[in-house]
Amino acid sequence: IAKEVAKLLEMKAQLGGDEGKPKFVLKTPKGTRDYGPKQMAIRERVFSAIISCFKRHGAEVIDTPVFELKETLTGKYGEDSKLIYDLKDQGGELLSLRYDLTVPFARYLAMNKITNIKRYHIAKVYRRDNPAMTRGRYREFYQCDFDIAGQFDPMIPDAECLKIVHEILSDLQLGDFVIKVNDRRILDGMFAVCGVPDSKFRTICSSVDKLDKVPWEEVRSEMVGEKGLSPEAADRIGEYVQLHGGLDLIERLLQDPKLSQNKLAKEGLGDMKLLFEYLTLFGITGKISFDLSLARGLDYYTGVIFEAVLLQQENEHVEELVGVGSVAGGGRYDGLVGMFDPKGRKVPCVGVSIGIERIFSILEQRLEASEEKIRTTETQVLVASAQKKLLEERLKLISELWDAGIKAEMLYKKNPKLLNQLQYCEDSGIPLVAIVGEQELKDGVVKLRIVATREEVNIRRESLVEEIRTRTSQP
Amino acid sequence: IAKEVAKLLEMKAQLGGDEGKPKFVLKTPKGTRDYGPKQMAIRERVFSAIISCFKRHGAEVIDTPVFELKETLTGKYGEDSKLIYDLKDQGGELLSLRYDLTVPFARYLAMNKITNIKRYHIAKVYRRDNPAMTRGRYREFYQCDFDIAGQFDPMIPDAECLKIVHEILSDLQLGDFVIKVNDRRILDGMFAVCGVPDSKFRTICSSVDKLDKVPWEEVRSEMVGEKGLSPEAADRIGEYVQLHGGLDLIERLLQDPKLSQNKLAKEGLGDMKLLFEYLTLFGITGKISFDLSLARGLDYYTGVIFEAVLLQQENEHVEELVGVGSVAGGGRYDGLVGMFDPKGRKVPCVGVSIGIERIFSILEQRLEASEEKIRTTETQVLVASAQKKLLEERLKLISELWDAGIKAEMLYKKNPKLLNQLQYCEDSGIPLVAIVGEQELKDGVVKLRIVATREEVNIRRESLVEEIRTRTSQP
Repeated sequence: IAKEVAKLLEMKAQLGGDEGKPKFVLKTPKGTRDYGPKQMAIRERVFSAIISCFKRHGAEVIDTPVFELKETLTGKYGEDSKLIYDLKDQGGELLSLRYDLTVPFARYLAMNKITNIKRYHIAKVYRRDNPAMTRGRYREFYQCDFDIAGQFDPMIPDAECLKIVHEILSDLQLGDFVIKVNDRRILDGMFAVCGVPDSKFRTICSSVDKLDKVPWEEVRSEMVGEKGLSPEAADRIGEYVQLHGGLDLIERLLQDPKLSQNKLAKEGLGDMKLLFEYLTLFGITGKISFDLSLARGLDYYTGVIFEAVLLQQENEHVEELVGVGSVAGGGRYDGLVGMFDPKGRKVPCVGVSIGIERIFSILEQRLEASEEKIRTTETQVLVASAQKKLLEERLKLISELWDAGIKAEMLYKKNPKLLNQLQYCEDSGIPLVAIVGEQELKDGVVKLRIVATREEVNIRRESLVEEIRTRTSQP
Repeated sequence: IAKEVAKLLEMKAQLGGDEGKPKFVLKTPKGTRDYGPKQMAIRERVFSAIISCFKRHGAEVIDTPVFELKETLTGKYGEDSKLIYDLKDQGGELLSLRYDLTVPFARYLAMNKITNIKRYHIAKVYRRDNPAMTRGRYREFYQCDFDIAGQFDPMIPDAECLKIVHEILSDLQLGDFVIKVNDRRILDGMFAVCGVPDSKFRTICSSVDKLDKVPWEEVRSEMVGEKGLSPEAADRIGEYVQLHGGLDLIERLLQDPKLSQNKLAKEGLGDMKLLFEYLTLFGITGKISFDLSLARGLDYYTGVIFEAVLLQQENEHVEELVGVGSVAGGGRYDGLVGMFDPKGRKVPCVGVSIGIERIFSILEQRLEASEEKIRTTETQVLVASAQKKLLEERLKLISELWDAGIKAEMLYKKNPKLLNQLQYCEDSGIPLVAIVGEQELKDGVVKLRIVATREEVNIRRESLVEEIRTRTSQP
């Protein structure tokens, strides 16, 4: 038997090479996607709104490599570090794909000894997370970050970050939203006065972070059951984290007999009051909620934290607004740059990150529902011919138009049918057709057809560029 | 002794933990760099010129993930495959960073069964090459690709690609340039009639490819010495590859007793003639050189190939123009999409890639030499105050300006000195200062200072936005 098996295995090995190449899998990697022309049109619209806001606030722009030395990312993301993509060791340095834009920014500041900058950075980041693509959660996704680095007077840059979130979300018309604000110092102070042991601050903080998704009862049982917090401490936290409001709440907590005794909480509340004063001057407190349940995941925050949430109006009762997810977030991180500086010199920073993928998803779904036709090119005119043997004339004319800066196309056929040329304009939204024909060539004119009205006018060749410009200029 | 050593080792181990963390290396990965605000300003200028050309030619835009399944890239780049960056196997799919934008484009077409598209794609690609950063050769670098896919009449899209290169290089004012053109079919035909054995086509082709860097004698000795070609065959090739010219040369080769007998060469020369006719209509043959020494490295080309080279005028003798390197290249690749299609269906493609990094290097060096001051923000006005205790008034005014779409900044200080505020404008090129003071507030005006002239005018608050717009509108 052993002999026979050996024979068969040998035969199989010989045949192996002829089994044909394995079936080729035609796909993008898990959690990623291509952007086709339609998605790109939406993407560019959103980027343009965001970039013009960042520029309105005087930001410069920088870019960093897609990968960093592995050690640059080490120890910055807590337990999320397991989601970092590493590159294969092919000799040389060990590299990882960037996980966010904040750590590369801090590395950039420390490396170039920059202590003062206001910059934005729009680029893709990478997380080996569980993708949920219909809800806009990808493994490769864009972040749009605006940060202010430098030693300044309290809460002025922080207030500007919130103003920026307000401007962008208003501008994009995504519907009603609220920006929740809290401060890491208030949270830490609150944990202290509730009797949470220092060693449990972080894990209790991450329980609190879940309050936007699960009810208090569940969070409480996690704290007590899994994390071993005393029921009394949990109940005390429960009283605080259900609070949200505005200046009135800040004033009340400043009088709170326990919190007001805690140095960190007092500092945080004082700054929160200042922040609200500035936001009042900006006229945006209507959308801001001081919310003691906001905790945010990342380790590096040290002061103000915030998160913008879109609200979905279920029915007329405003009370039943339901959050449909975070679309922007950020906060103050005064210690991160110091982690990179050889002498530990600190550069205080505050910044905001716009969660662009969720916004794309919403706008894509909305566009599909609306059946609005979206143009994916900007072509102003199709150069066409009514008869055969006019390829040379079309080439000459289109070249003239290109050289004059007109956006022009032609069909790549020697003798296209006029009907096909007109159909192409219908399909791709080109508003004008410049038709060359034998008679027009003799007369020194071009027939200009307006696709929408089917009107046709003869234009002298030397006036054609001006005529196209006038007819396609944006109002 | 052994005992003592053991003791010492134990002591060392105990001390190990206290030796402090290893010195942190503060750098970007080898062959990569950050783009600071100044570099970004140049980058955006160049991109804007290129994108507006691509749009002028009616291109849509797409984007693909930065990594692909490893097998997508396998077998597409010949021996350059060793330069591909692989990701670490962390479970799940095996991934590699994209090496160019052409293979992902072909994968995108096959996956979405697209047989007809004109698109551009601007994104970073990755090669584990030997970097030469001062000359613009990086491991992470941008490619700007424009491609036309579809079954069309011969040479019309090919001619448009060359027109695009001509437009972009003229527009960027990089100095004199020449676009070399050849055809893979002419090369293959030439090798055949010169007596190169089929099996040596590719390796001899890559020897020919070196002719832009080393003299013919060296290339010849590589062919004969290293690659075992007969001296006679090498000499015959030598006669051909030193030829370059225009339509006249094409006509001469069409009459060449040997080449005219070769089917491939004849096809290639016929199409080359057609191409030159179209380029004549575009008025660009002055910068086009049909050059039999142009070979290009990549495996996937099947027809026309081209490469644009900047010329550096050493002195008045035009004969002594010296190439300073390729800034654009491309060609026809009719077989690549078929490699991805399960049924092998072909989609003919032709495209061009702009070598943007070398262009950045040139413009960066030129800018540094010129001492031209480049602005890195677009801020129109700084909101300033002449006295103390006016932070609230500055915040109110700047908020009004932002809401009106004015690009405005302020210093993040409670009581900044006027001199510091004016200095900030000088440093960052902000042209206007809106100064609030107690008297101005009473009078309902704002003092507008023109930084360049030091002129100051009082503007009624309700006219301020309009005044700033007028004074900062581009002519």
